[in-house]
Amino acid sequence: MSEKRDGEAALGFDPAELPGDSHVVYIGRVSSPWKSRDTCPKNLADARATGKAASVTIDPPYRPGLAGLERFSHIVLLSWFDRSRRDLITQNPRHADAPRGTFALRSPVRPNPVGLHVVRLVSLDVETGLIEIDAIDLLDGTPVIDVKPYFASIDSVPDAAKA
Amino acid sequence: MSEKRDGEAALGFDPAELPGDSHVVYIGRVSSPWKSRDTCPKNLADARATGKAASVTIDPPYRPGLAGLERFSHIVLLSWFDRSRRDLITQNPRHADAPRGTFALRSPVRPNPVGLHVVRLVSLDVETGLIEIDAIDLLDGTPVIDVKPYFASIDSVPDAAKA
Repeated sequence: MSEKRDGEAALGFDPAELPGDSHVVYIGRVSSPWKSRDTCPKNLADARATGKAASVTIDPPYRPGLAGLERFSHIVLLSWFDRSRRDLITQNPRHADAPRGTFALRSPVRPNPVGLHVVRLVSLDVETGLIEIDAIDLLDGTPVIDVKPYFASIDSVPDAAKA
Repeated sequence: MSEKRDGEAALGFDPAELPGDSHVVYIGRVSSPWKSRDTCPKNLADARATGKAASVTIDPPYRPGLAGLERFSHIVLLSWFDRSRRDLITQNPRHADAPRGTFALRSPVRPNPVGLHVVRLVSLDVETGLIEIDAIDLLDGTPVIDVKPYFASIDSVPDAAKA
């Protein structure tokens, strides 16, 4: 749990304490060089700059689901930030000059702590469930909830802008 | 629930029936022109080709989380395919010549039925929670679990390829 900074606002309830509308099952775990928050890169660009690779191991029952994924150069990982609080609705990140809404940030702190990571597929072994990737901005051991093929035709917007 | 086709394999259990490792809360709902599976576009490219826009309405407690999102030209929606089965680990889509692993497909049928949609932000009203977007490949009423800003620097890979 991180502390609350000036200008941050919490929901009047904690999504982690609600009964929930549906549930997630962890399908695997990330292996990364990052064992603590202090050393973990804050985004994928920083993670790539370290030159350190990473991997995901998918749990046995889900491994047949990887068949055919080797055809793709890039994949989408959806992670579950299981060590992040869920009740902050505005946040004041160190890099920002003022508080912002949680949905305008990629912070791991969010009502549903799902992380989105577009990574290069280095190798895939369906039998062992091992997915080697070029880099990751996640703590070692973080759960994974989904893997998808990346399609440039719908997922890539090179001229997407921020005003 | 869709039926099982030739060459498709189910897990030996149904993730929907497991206790779950964590839970999701719905933060809003999609409004779309698509009221039935027959008419719903199968992907965002097809949805855009119809020329029909769509919107998301975020529930009141979560609306402050939208502050600052108006600065982005594109956003990522994470949806929850609440009407899809979760137990197929290989699937035989109509467009494919052979069964493929669920994680090599963007099918709504997956252990955690999270949909990933990169869309253009048309307008945003934080007070009413209304997010207007250019198109969506989701049934009307589908729950939303997260909204994120899209960053071309980490999310766009225009030369991503499929072998």
